[in-house]
Amino acid sequence: MTGRPLRAVALGGGHGLHATLTALRGITEDVTAVVTVADDGGSSGRLRRELGLLPPGDLRKALLALAGPDSGPWGTVFGHRFGGTGALAGHAVGNLVLAGLLETVGDPVAALAEAARLLGVAGRVLPMSPEPVDIEADVTGLAEDPATVRHIRGQVAVATTPGRVRRIRLLSATRRGERPTACAEAVAAVLAADVVLLGPGSWFTSVLPHLMVPDLHDALVRTGATRVVVLNLVPQPGETEGFSPEHHLDVLAEHAPRLRVDAVIADVDSVPVPDRLRQAAKALGADIRLDHVAAADAADRHDPAALGASVTRAVATALER
Amino acid sequence: MTGRPLRAVALGGGHGLHATLTALRGITEDVTAVVTVADDGGSSGRLRRELGLLPPGDLRKALLALAGPDSGPWGTVFGHRFGGTGALAGHAVGNLVLAGLLETVGDPVAALAEAARLLGVAGRVLPMSPEPVDIEADVTGLAEDPATVRHIRGQVAVATTPGRVRRIRLLSATRRGERPTACAEAVAAVLAADVVLLGPGSWFTSVLPHLMVPDLHDALVRTGATRVVVLNLVPQPGETEGFSPEHHLDVLAEHAPRLRVDAVIADVDSVPVPDRLRQAAKALGADIRLDHVAAADAADRHDPAALGASVTRAVATALER
Repeated sequence: MTGRPLRAVALGGGHGLHATLTALRGITEDVTAVVTVADDGGSSGRLRRELGLLPPGDLRKALLALAGPDSGPWGTVFGHRFGGTGALAGHAVGNLVLAGLLETVGDPVAALAEAARLLGVAGRVLPMSPEPVDIEADVTGLAEDPATVRHIRGQVAVATTPGRVRRIRLLSATRRGERPTACAEAVAAVLAADVVLLGPGSWFTSVLPHLMVPDLHDALVRTGATRVVVLNLVPQPGETEGFSPEHHLDVLAEHAPRLRVDAVIADVDSVPVPDRLRQAAKALGADIRLDHVAAADAADRHDPAALGASVTRAVATALER
Repeated sequence: MTGRPLRAVALGGGHGLHATLTALRGITEDVTAVVTVADDGGSSGRLRRELGLLPPGDLRKALLALAGPDSGPWGTVFGHRFGGTGALAGHAVGNLVLAGLLETVGDPVAALAEAARLLGVAGRVLPMSPEPVDIEADVTGLAEDPATVRHIRGQVAVATTPGRVRRIRLLSATRRGERPTACAEAVAAVLAADVVLLGPGSWFTSVLPHLMVPDLHDALVRTGATRVVVLNLVPQPGETEGFSPEHHLDVLAEHAPRLRVDAVIADVDSVPVPDRLRQAAKALGADIRLDHVAAADAADRHDPAALGASVTRAVATALER
């Protein structure tokens, strides 16, 4: 490690990515967010359906996380949602701005760089793919025979299914039946990183999708970076209801058998049987770090400083090995 | 006149204001636009009805006129309209951004200053009133008896009426039956100006409304600035169909009997009987300037450089008097 700042890449979407980006902002200036573009709900889903664009919501949240609380009036505008009951109700203004940038700039990487400049973001926000993608999941427990597998399509449908998600696939939303292409800059960022974070977040709809973009998966397998998986603090109703911490890792391994991991970070209070987690981590090649990383005032939210410190220790330990 | 740049204020809305702002940008750095906020059509009208905000369209056009052609990617985003047939179709992105700023910043003057910074605008864009206003017109020729006066309400209705507009009133859209308040910064700008431009533009719906805001009217009457009226190049179908150049001045005088004017600028080819215009101008205290101010390639559009030069000569002449 020379004097340059740690090159960190966080992959995820939504609230989970917000947590890792906020944590990373505290330990380095060189942060790249790689964001899922599978959302089909809410303001993002409406924009995606109406205009055929990348769903902007998770990109906007990542920009605001990296901008931090001092993002000024434009941060406030980006986060503001129109009220009322009209055609604009519920749209985040930042989603509309990103939609306008995506349509006029064309290249999503350049469009996001423009938004990042406006918000005073030091790092970068990249989409995992330059095109919108669809999640398709194999789900059991929806038919009379509990072993019957149904294909459920769409992020909202998968995230809220009452069945048990077994496996996901990712499909290009624009090229029918084909797998999504990776954002070239995201691939390059993963390969050049010192540390790569996967999770926390909605496991099947925000975390695992990154492993299902072929070139991004390969980059995660090949990178010389320290690979860190951050587990969720609480199971998510719907897609991971009843999942133990170790089961999250088993599912990860099933989706990316070649992926090696250096460290698995979990909150000490959210792991009922540490030995089982240690076992599941070992199968991925990883040590586990059981730290106090939950916020003092909210058990379902990470404490940014504690998570940042845990990541720093995970990187130091990996470099010593 | 010391070494400081000429302080110019242009009052209007829509395309006419775009023309004067572009012309003024060529002769001074200190330009303030005072913009009508009576629009109830198109993207602006939809936003106004849905969110209860100032109609942003004319404000956006004034910002883009002052930003000029080199306003960069944000100028392109501001001017871009969403396509398709969905809820966003036809909305200019800049209108949505201004709506977001107006809702989060609160004070429209501060919100517009933020947008001006983003677009690299040197001058200022101010609304004529901090609240949306409604135009109401007395219109004849709509009933069997051609002298019957009907009250027509709303900018779109007035601008497109097949009848003859006789007189307009302005009403606060939020305080029922009351006259609109003036934007204090617009009043101050008019009082501190070296030159004030009124017109060109839709006479009843973009130009005369400024005279119907009591405090703005008083400022125009009291200011020590050179007062210049710029006439339209062609009559506007609907509201001023068949109006001669001199009739535009007569209507102006009827709406603001106390207003004195220094110069009336008209294109030499759009004035059939110069003596009649001279007579009507004299009633306002003004000289007429018949210059070649139409664009070489479009008889319905002003040439910015020619209009700027004409304004400069009008100011010089007024100072010599």
